[in-house]
Order: sequence, then C-alpha cells, then structure tokens
Amino acid sequence: MPQSRVVILGAGFGGLTAAKSLAKHAQVTLVDRHNFQTFLPLLYQVSTAGLAADHVAYPVRGALRDSGVGFSMGSPVSIDHSKKTVTLDNGQVLDFDYVVIAMGSSTADFGIKGVAEFTYAMKSVHEALAIRASVMRHFEDLCRVDDGSSCELTVVGGGPTGVEMAGALAELVRGPLKRDLETVASRMHVRLIEAGSRLLPSFDQKLSDRTKLDLEKLGVEVLLNTAVQEVTRSDITLGSGERIQSSMTIWAAGVKGAPVIHSLDLPIERERVVVEPTLQVKDLPHAFAIGDLSGSVGVNGQLLPMVAPVAIQQGKWVARQIQGLIKGTRPEPFIYKDKGSMATIGRHKAVVQVNNFKLAGPLAWLAWLWLHLFYLLGGRNKIGTIADWTWNYLTFDRANRHIIDEL
Amino acid sequence: MPQSRVVILGAGFGGLTAAKSLAKHAQVTLVDRHNFQTFLPLLYQVSTAGLAADHVAYPVRGALRDSGVGFSMGSPVSIDHSKKTVTLDNGQVLDFDYVVIAMGSSTADFGIKGVAEFTYAMKSVHEALAIRASVMRHFEDLCRVDDGSSCELTVVGGGPTGVEMAGALAELVRGPLKRDLETVASRMHVRLIEAGSRLLPSFDQKLSDRTKLDLEKLGVEVLLNTAVQEVTRSDITLGSGERIQSSMTIWAAGVKGAPVIHSLDLPIERERVVVEPTLQVKDLPHAFAIGDLSGSVGVNGQLLPMVAPVAIQQGKWVARQIQGLIKGTRPEPFIYKDKGSMATIGRHKAVVQVNNFKLAGPLAWLAWLWLHLFYLLGGRNKIGTIADWTWNYLTFDRANRHIIDEL
Repeated sequence: MPQSRVVILGAGFGGLTAAKSLAKHAQVTLVDRHNFQTFLPLLYQVSTAGLAADHVAYPVRGALRDSGVGFSMGSPVSIDHSKKTVTLDNGQVLDFDYVVIAMGSSTADFGIKGVAEFTYAMKSVHEALAIRASVMRHFEDLCRVDDGSSCELTVVGGGPTGVEMAGALAELVRGPLKRDLETVASRMHVRLIEAGSRLLPSFDQKLSDRTKLDLEKLGVEVLLNTAVQEVTRSDITLGSGERIQSSMTIWAAGVKGAPVIHSLDLPIERERVVVEPTLQVKDLPHAFAIGDLSGSVGVNGQLLPMVAPVAIQQGKWVARQIQGLIKGTRPEPFIYKDKGSMATIGRHKAVVQVNNFKLAGPLAWLAWLWLHLFYLLGGRNKIGTIADWTWNYLTFDRANRHIIDEL
Repeated sequence: MPQSRVVILGAGFGGLTAAKSLAKHAQVTLVDRHNFQTFLPLLYQVSTAGLAADHVAYPVRGALRDSGVGFSMGSPVSIDHSKKTVTLDNGQVLDFDYVVIAMGSSTADFGIKGVAEFTYAMKSVHEALAIRASVMRHFEDLCRVDDGSSCELTVVGGGPTGVEMAGALAELVRGPLKRDLETVASRMHVRLIEAGSRLLPSFDQKLSDRTKLDLEKLGVEVLLNTAVQEVTRSDITLGSGERIQSSMTIWAAGVKGAPVIHSLDLPIERERVVVEPTLQVKDLPHAFAIGDLSGSVGVNGQLLPMVAPVAIQQGKWVARQIQGLIKGTRPEPFIYKDKGSMATIGRHKAVVQVNNFKLAGPLAWLAWLWLHLFYLLGGRNKIGTIADWTWNYLTFDRANRHIIDEL
C-alpha cells in the first residue's frame, strides 16, 4: 500500500512540528516561502541590536535532515479541495490525501488609517532588520543636528510583544547609544501606548502593574487607556483627538490569520479558519488548520492565543490525528494545555505566570532565558545566542547596531 | 591654540586606524556611508553560509568610544581644496586643516560586457547576502525540477578572493547541501576562471600549483589562460569565442579605487589618486590618500596591492605625518613592510608566503585562522566567529543558509 501523502503549508512552530511528527508515517511535503524558520519570540532582540539576524533563523532543510520529509520553497496560490491538490507560486502542483494549513499570522491594523503605510511590523527577519536600521538611522540623524530636536520611538500595543519591544528599545537607548553619544541618546524617548486599562491583559493585575513600573524605571513613557486613531510618518492622532509626535511607530497592537487563507477556499470567521474541535477545517475533513490562523477555541469558548505553545501542541496533535485517520480511527478534539505565559522587560526584569503561580524579577528573567534557549532550534543558534547574550550581559553593550536594510 | 581639524573619509582599515591614531592629537571627524566597518577578508564566508552577516560588521561608534573622534554617516559629494571644506550627501559641510581620503575600492569590470549587470560582486555585506541568497535559491530551484538540469556557479578571477570564494562554495555544495539533498547537490558545479597562466600570481609558482590541486580535489573545475569576453544572465563567452553555461557568475577579477574619487577634485591615474611618496595627494599637501584608492607605489615602482595590511600601515603612517605637520616638521616617504600573504582554500587547506618562507596545508590553515581572528575588530565578533567556526568545523555544517535578500 502506498503511503498517504500529507502537504503541510507553513514551516513555523506548528507546521515544522507536525512535519517531523508525521515523517515516519506518511509521505510528507513541507512548504514555506522562506528556506528558514524564524524564531519569532526573539525577533525583537534583532530589532534592538541584541542578537545577530542569522541567529533567529534556522534552515528548514537542516531541521528536516534524514527525516524523509520533502521541502518546497514557495507559497500556496490555491487549493482544490475536491481534487486534493495545492498549487504553489513556484509552479508546483502537489497532490495530497491530507493538508495542514499552518501559515501563521500577519499584522492586523483594525482599519486604522496609516498603520499599513507608516508603521513597522514585527513579523519577519526583514521587518526586524528594518526596525533596527530605522532606529539607528534616527540616532545618526540626531547626531548631525544640534538644534535640540528629539526623536520619539512609539510602540503601540501593551501585550507581551509590545512590552518586550519597548523595554529592549529603552535599554538600547539608555545603554549602548548613550555610550555612543550621550547628549544625543538623551534626546531619544521610548513610549508605549495601550488601548486597554493595563499592560499584559492576559496576566494577573499585580504583574501588569509591576511591568508598568519596571518599564517606567527604564524610562519608557507608558500611556494606558489610549486608543490610536491615525498614524502618519511623523505623528499619531490619539482617540482623544490629541496629536503627538512620533518619529517612528512600531505596531504590536494586533495580529490576524495570514491573509493567504482567503485564497485557499476555506471557511473564515474573525480572520481565522473555522475548525471543528478536532482542528479539522469545517466541512473539509481532509484539511486541518493549526497555530495562529486556526479558529480553535479553548475550554472557555474563546479563541486560543496566537503563541508558539499552541502551535506546537496543535502540530503534534494533528500529526497524531492524521496517523489515526490513515489507520481508520476517528479524530478526537484538541485540548490546549496552558503551561503559562511570560514576558521579559529588561535586564533582571520579567514576569511569569503559570496558573496561580506568579513570579517577577530576576528569577522570572532567568526562567525566560532558559525557556527561550530550550525552544531555540538548532545547536548552532543556541551557541550563537548564548554568546551574544553573555556578551551583552557582561558589557551592557549591543554589538549588532549595523544598518543593513537596503540591498 | 585650537586643535587642528582632520576629516577622514572612509572607516575601513585605513581610515579607522588613522582616526584612532590621531584621536589625541587633533579634532578628528570620521565619515562613512555605513555606520559599521565591514571586515572584507571574511565576506566570502558570509556568501557561503559559514558566518553570520552581523559578525563581519562592527559599529564604527563602538570602535570610537571614548576616543573623542566624531563620526558622521554620509558620503562626500565634493571637496573644496582652497576653502578646505568637504560637503557630505547628508547636508553637512565639514571644515578641515587636513583631509584623509580612504574610501577603499570597488569592483572593476575592465569594460567587459555584462559584468556590471549580471555578475555578483563581493565588496559589501549586502553583496555577500545577495550571493548567499542566489546560491541557495538556485539550490531550491533545482530541488523542484527532476529533469537532470544542472547549475553552474562560476567565479571569475584567480587571486586570493576568487580562490577563497571558489573553495568555500565547493565545500558548501559538497558538504551541507549534499546532506540537505544529495541528488540535487551533485547537479551543482563550481568553476574558477583565471585569465593568467596560474592561480594566486603574487605567490610562488609551487603554491599556485598546490592551490589548483587542492581546489580540484574539492571538485572545482579550474580554467587557466581563459579570458572572459562577455557575461549574460545564463552564460559566459570566453576569449576563444566559446560559450559556456553559467547559472550565476561571481566577479572577483579586479578592483579599482572607489569611483567617488572622481568627484572630489583629485588627480587620478589608473583609477587611483596620484600621491607623493609621503602619501600626500599630488599638489594638494593638505590631503592624503591611503589604502586601496591610493596610487602609492612600492620599492619596485609598482602600485601597492589593495590589501588590509597596506591600508593599516598607511593609516598609522598618515596619522604620524599629520602630527608632524601640526608641529611643523616635514612629512617623510612611506615604505610598505610586506609581511607576506595568505589564502585559504578549505578545511585544513591554505597557502602562506612570507618572503622566501612558503607553507601549505594544515599549518598554513591554522596560521590563516589565527591571523584573521587577531585582526577581527571587537571581542563580540571574535567570540561569534569562533563559535561559528567551531560549529562548522565539528559538524561539517554551515548554519547560515538563510535566503535574506529582499527587504
């Protein structure tokens, strides 16, 4: 009997996990538009000159070596669900018995004017390098003029991504840039804007308060209950109508399922693929949707958060369900095991929450470091990241301040 | 008495050395179009996925910390030698008493058709990333088609740069890519073309022969006495009129002084700035030209080679001469101390020549490693490079195979 064919679209945490778990049980082809996986949780450290860009990327073919899984670099253009084929933009047409849709998320602008044109997103190595280049270019521009003008770096969105970005930016400005040219660094300000009443809304209120305090200690201006109405190249109009200067705006306020899902003939609600509790796409039992773009819900009936642990658990789960389907058993509903959340604010500063257990400060920070190293793919990236982190920690420096964006 | 003002154009080996040596003796401003120095001798390792791009770059302001030297990111647009001012493209106009011109070199195409449009150069981090992306993209393209088609990677130029590039490419193809997908890697071929009768013409004939043999052992096809007449996107016309397939052509056949020298009102011959033996520009005693773009000659009357040791020695020399001029002494002629040359071909393979001393093989390779680490700027880059090299050496892998070129 020939092996079942499985096509997995997307080599992020979910897709790569599913591909490796299925490798011995089916003929698997993994598809991604990049030849590398991006370790998104550490991208903000590339943006803020802490990590080398190459260290948050890992070659997909390296991860798949000796697994028997095939790889094709490309993006899906369409899926024919009756013929069970995927057409890729590289010209390939792949036949499948099962397809796993795992292409992650992209930035959501909620229709706010100017976000798409004028803000920096944080979803790819390219975008991280663009942020780094822009921050450093603003710094160099300020160095040339002695007119007392200032530079306002605004991060919009008080979730973990926004908090980590704002903290790392503040440390960059107050550390390495201050040592580069103190009079200029003191003219750069970091600001974090959140529409809700507190930072890190998914955490306990105490940790939210602590996070705000920690950020303010680093010199970040935190604006809560502040909606954004419009963004331009040089300013932001707030919900109140007030207009504030913003030399550079980084958008960490929202994500949605990758837009490509709209062209793949899938049922979509709230920008995510509608799935059964088994993660099978509604009315398409041969298709599964996992990770950020999956409309899977938790026990409380709410959409699951767009985080790596969900994608990884769903990747493993889907691999098991497809193995079952091949053998003739019925798929079972997926249940997310929430292992807690964490966010780092800066040196010795982080918050961790696991169910009722809460932790803040140096121990939480160590836990964050350890977990991110553990999840980092590939020994070489672990070594490189440890080297960069150790260097940064001991010297209070960030060596990757290079402007490398225009090729 | 106010300090003399010195403007140094270019933060490469020559310019940065001059700036640091002069820091305590004059008011120095260093100008470069990048905010980082590029370690050119290791760029080919970025091109071939051996080193992270960020590790061959070093922030200029980091190198200048606490030195008192100023930095301006920009390129010179013009020099007014009577008013003693430099105008930069960032709008700044800098006054000087002395100016040092040290902007290095760019690729020379010798008027050969297609070189500018269709070949890859090796003079910047961007170009290195473009080569890496192109090689990896060719590999991915080959993976998709099973028609027996092949990919020919051609390096033109048998000097140290071409030799090192060809060797590293061959190791990439026969090592990591073979492990990624053996049937495809065996369809990728590396070829080195040299117009002269031997590789590494500045070395002893025996080392040239050894280098050719070593490259051939790695699977590189070496074509000597082969001129290039024209390059297109997919082939090369040789001097003989023969046309050979070349999926990708890397140009390492020649360099010339940076073209910007033409707009700075300087005497130019053979694409280099005409200088006195003191490195002062002819008829412009307040201006010095050092490094790759300097028309300085050796004891044999020939132009000095465009290599880092020349630039570094000249940087130090010029700093001393300017100190002397400030004190009222007369500049003296520069004499280059040739400390020898080396080139690496691959794992355990390198050639070293110091006067009459010649060395090839593992010891030469170790000498090469040691010297390049010693010259690498900045502790962080040393650590990162050691980590990457150790990893590559032990695993026979190259982890930086990411296609990161289109921002």
